[in-house]
This record gives sequence, C-alpha cells and structure tokens, in this order.
Amino acid sequence: MYESFMRRAIALSCQGVETGGGPFGAVVVKDDDMIGEGMSQVVPCADPTAHAEIVAIRAACARLGMHDLSGAVIVSSCEPCPMCLGAIWWSRMGLVVYGNDRTDAAAIGFDDAAIYAEVAAHLEARRLPLRRVLADEALSAFRLWQAKPDKVSY
Amino acid sequence: MYESFMRRAIALSCQGVETGGGPFGAVVVKDDDMIGEGMSQVVPCADPTAHAEIVAIRAACARLGMHDLSGAVIVSSCEPCPMCLGAIWWSRMGLVVYGNDRTDAAAIGFDDAAIYAEVAAHLEARRLPLRRVLADEALSAFRLWQAKPDKVSY
Repeated sequence: MYESFMRRAIALSCQGVETGGGPFGAVVVKDDDMIGEGMSQVVPCADPTAHAEIVAIRAACARLGMHDLSGAVIVSSCEPCPMCLGAIWWSRMGLVVYGNDRTDAAAIGFDDAAIYAEVAAHLEARRLPLRRVLADEALSAFRLWQAKPDKVSY
Repeated sequence: MYESFMRRAIALSCQGVETGGGPFGAVVVKDDDMIGEGMSQVVPCADPTAHAEIVAIRAACARLGMHDLSGAVIVSSCEPCPMCLGAIWWSRMGLVVYGNDRTDAAAIGFDDAAIYAEVAAHLEARRLPLRRVLADEALSAFRLWQAKPDKVSY
C-alpha cells in the first residue's frame, strides 16, 4: 500500500543527485496524503542535518503547525541513519517504510556502521571525545523546568 | 577552557524554558569564537528536530556557508541525544563538551534510554516497526550517484 509513496520518494532521491545533493528522498504520509517531502540537501544547502527524512519531517510539521506527527508514516528511499531515526522517534511517527537498506548505502560510500557503533558505545569508548564541565551550574535550567507550572512536555 | 562557552550554553538553556521550549542550550565554537548558538525550540517552532544542538549546528553552517564544521567544538548544556549525536557526527566536529548528563535529563522527564536502545537494536527488535518495499526500484538513485562524474561526497 505504500508503493506509490515510495515511488515519489525514489523520484526525490534521483532529483537529489541531479541537484547536487545525495541519492536520498523521503515523504511523510498521513491519512493517505503526502504532507511533507524532502531530498538530501546537505551540500547544496550547506546543512549537515538536511538529510531527506529531516527535510520531510520539518516540512510536514511546518504544514501542520505542530511538532507531533503521531499517526503519520515516513516513506524513505533508504533506511534512515541514526540521526534521522532519532528525528523520526521524536516526531512520534509510527512506521518507517524504506527501499534501500544500510548495506546498499554502504556499497556506494554512505556507510552508517561507524555512527551506529558510536551511538551504542559507552562515552569512554566513543571515537568522538566528550568532556564534562560545570555540571552543577548546568542543572539550573533543569530546576527552572521542574518549577515551571505551565510547561509543555514533548 | 570551555567554561565561558558553557555558561553561554547554560544561559540559553534557561532562556529555552522561559520562551516555551525545553531546558537545553548549545553553542558551536571554532577558533575561540562562537559561530552558532541554539536553544530547544521544539514546541515554539513546531519542529521535533529543533533541539539546541541542531539549531546551533544549522546556525554555524549558515554563517560559514558550509556543511563541514571540522575543527569546531559543540558545547551543550546537556549530553546530546542520539539524533543530535548523529548531527554532530555528520558535521565532523571533533569534541563534545557537556554539562548535564543523560541521567540528569531522565530525572526531569527527558529520558533518552529508549531511543538509545532503539538505535542499537536490530531492525526486527525495534519498537518502531520498519517495512521494506520496492528495494529494486530504489537502487536507481544509487546507480545515478555512482555514475555521476562530478558528485560531491559528504
């Protein structure tokens, strides 16, 4: 049932290549309507977060005027990377439909294996080093949050 | 040496709470200059990807006009979630400086444990289901990419 939406995502992935981006496209579908679409724009838009899925999610949220895409589905020409999987998670979508998988992507130079390992690794084992400073002062905003009576959780 | 930048990130995290977002702030630092900053804007901007780190990365890249932040450091009031860690990874920054950690965040209702588990899980074990369709057709953009002589890898 998602084939027609996948064909649109694939068309966007081809358009991505033709417009100087990477070979990735995605659409967000809700109630059988496409409410957002995107293609890889990392290089042409000088934005490392502009993966197809994130562009599509941002477009869908802008159209609906809300950050919550519960009940929507993302249809992506490729299995999402950890960044995009995180974005899909935060958007509360309920299903990921994909075409190419991470093995296909690795075969053309988009290898997510290192980043999957990085996210799963304990902080001490990370390739990207982390350093903690001012932990006590940083809690101040958390205390503000806890004390705020009208906060909107997300 | 990152204390002054962390104090700015903490100030942004407090401003996040005061302006209807979450208690998170971040700055991108390169050659001792702040080149981008951000606070959590998920709710006020209706954008689930608008975590402080992503807002700061996008601002820094917009200022520099490039997607590559090699040599820069992200200073975040809290340990990044997997989505943001992915964005930091793709931006090629070399160090993460953080204040609160994931345990502090979980204690005020921002629990990243489930999303860490999700990214690390095999596809069949994911809570967010995935379905594969049109794998053969989806390869078309990958073939275009491979055949493109002037492609810019990222």
